[in-house]
Amino acid sequence: MVAEALLGSWNDTPARRAIVAFVQAASGEGSPGWVPPAERVAVFDNDGTLWSEKPIPIQLDFTLFRLAELATRDPSLRDRQPYKAAVERDYRWLGEAMVKHYHGDDADLRLLEGGVESAFEGMGVEAYGAEVLAWLDTAAHPVLRRPYLSCGFVPMVELLRYLEANGFTTYIASGGDRDFMRPFAETIYGIPPERVIGSALGLDFDDSDADTRLVYKSKIEFFDDGPQKPVRIWSRIGRRPLVAGGNSNGDIPMMRFARSGDRGALRLLVLHDDADREFAYTAGAEDALDRARTHGWTIVSVKDDWKTIFADR
Amino acid sequence: MVAEALLGSWNDTPARRAIVAFVQAASGEGSPGWVPPAERVAVFDNDGTLWSEKPIPIQLDFTLFRLAELATRDPSLRDRQPYKAAVERDYRWLGEAMVKHYHGDDADLRLLEGGVESAFEGMGVEAYGAEVLAWLDTAAHPVLRRPYLSCGFVPMVELLRYLEANGFTTYIASGGDRDFMRPFAETIYGIPPERVIGSALGLDFDDSDADTRLVYKSKIEFFDDGPQKPVRIWSRIGRRPLVAGGNSNGDIPMMRFARSGDRGALRLLVLHDDADREFAYTAGAEDALDRARTHGWTIVSVKDDWKTIFADR
Repeated sequence: MVAEALLGSWNDTPARRAIVAFVQAASGEGSPGWVPPAERVAVFDNDGTLWSEKPIPIQLDFTLFRLAELATRDPSLRDRQPYKAAVERDYRWLGEAMVKHYHGDDADLRLLEGGVESAFEGMGVEAYGAEVLAWLDTAAHPVLRRPYLSCGFVPMVELLRYLEANGFTTYIASGGDRDFMRPFAETIYGIPPERVIGSALGLDFDDSDADTRLVYKSKIEFFDDGPQKPVRIWSRIGRRPLVAGGNSNGDIPMMRFARSGDRGALRLLVLHDDADREFAYTAGAEDALDRARTHGWTIVSVKDDWKTIFADR
Repeated sequence: MVAEALLGSWNDTPARRAIVAFVQAASGEGSPGWVPPAERVAVFDNDGTLWSEKPIPIQLDFTLFRLAELATRDPSLRDRQPYKAAVERDYRWLGEAMVKHYHGDDADLRLLEGGVESAFEGMGVEAYGAEVLAWLDTAAHPVLRRPYLSCGFVPMVELLRYLEANGFTTYIASGGDRDFMRPFAETIYGIPPERVIGSALGLDFDDSDADTRLVYKSKIEFFDDGPQKPVRIWSRIGRRPLVAGGNSNGDIPMMRFARSGDRGALRLLVLHDDADREFAYTAGAEDALDRARTHGWTIVSVKDDWKTIFADR
């Protein structure tokens, strides 16, 4: 049993008590809810669950940066979406593309994906990782006015450590690009590359030189959201999660997949209800909130359950 | 520095000495070849590298069993390949399909894949794993006359433990089906499901019941061989391997991918040259052997380098 002191940024509320009770039951020797350590798998969405996703997912800001760069090189792109939004830094168009997606309208998301898909064509995986880190080193959140690298939710990082201290293995399972998250996931979340699950561009193996490379194609291999989340979790881990955390409708399948037979699961849904300290929104999370309320999932209120949200700068 | 005594089934030959020298250099504090533990990734092909693959890969025998079962239910299948080979237990047709594949002719492999793809359509992932274990519990090797579960190469299992004892993380990276290998990989090799990389059938998420399931589609998602091996390794691990072991032409890309910049890698190619104790063949491994000889890869001779091959029954 590891000290709950690890959860220092959490208020003493029902959400925190539900987490502690579940973890103690799963990891306590002789507890009726005991689960073997190998089966203690915890998966967490990233955008909106481990760090802020408003006004647009942080990865989209990186993509904007790249697309604007491409439009600067080729002016014929400037009047077309998503390049137009990139050059004009039109966060609204991009944010709405995601909300529309969660409501079943993928038209704008397709345009965006087309841009994203071709933005890194032919680049090697290691070079891409270096670009991500170089950009993150200087990029800051436009509203929160802090470096993106300090936009991780401290209570969630504490939760990752608390779970690990109790024998859980933690994974990120996000709709974001796997190779975008990998370079910083260890720094921000303490999660190594092999435990980062996400969307992926197709890859080609280039063996034309003595030193081989993997290079991105201009085609997405899979978009890891909704029903793809359990598929990617199984592909990577080969086990069902015991703990699943998310914040949007796209996380429902992953959270439902957490249950196997009559084994209980801890399902955490982060509710963004703190306009003063972060953001307040439920768009794209309506179904998840409904299900949480009718099925006893644990709703984590940013406003009520978190003493602090971000690390001091 | 961990005792080389772990490699007790290896003869004291150049292959064993190359392994020990590389592992000592990578893991020895203050060694010029030292590599951080997180980067000590070792990947191994399965069929022909960790266990026997002749006269046909063991998974194909499982598939034969299943296809014959399907042909029993639907007699119209009996005169068509691969069902015909399954009912007649015609190992030759199946073995040759693999050899033809390694030589660039995929016609028979396509027929076989079609059969394999549809053989488990609609089955849940956990039910499939249970079928694999139930079959392995009784199935025996037709030539070696031992249970399939004891067809693992003891020296390679020792090598996995030796690598792990020196801070390496071991993975299987095989052309075989990921979910076929997972149920027994822990028992035979001590490798858990999350470290088994392989080919995969597509999966659908079935959430029609309260207890969700992942079920197989009748379509392969990817065949993890040749240039797909580095792609799947990167997808899963997000790092290049430092040690790569294989035995056929399909392992060349994975073994070449092991090199990053001027960092050395240990590349092991198992040579099946022991007709008395196992099998002797080089079909489908010609290019790999050529490359091993011209590029200084370490060839592991079953006959000369391994004191024992299989565990006592």
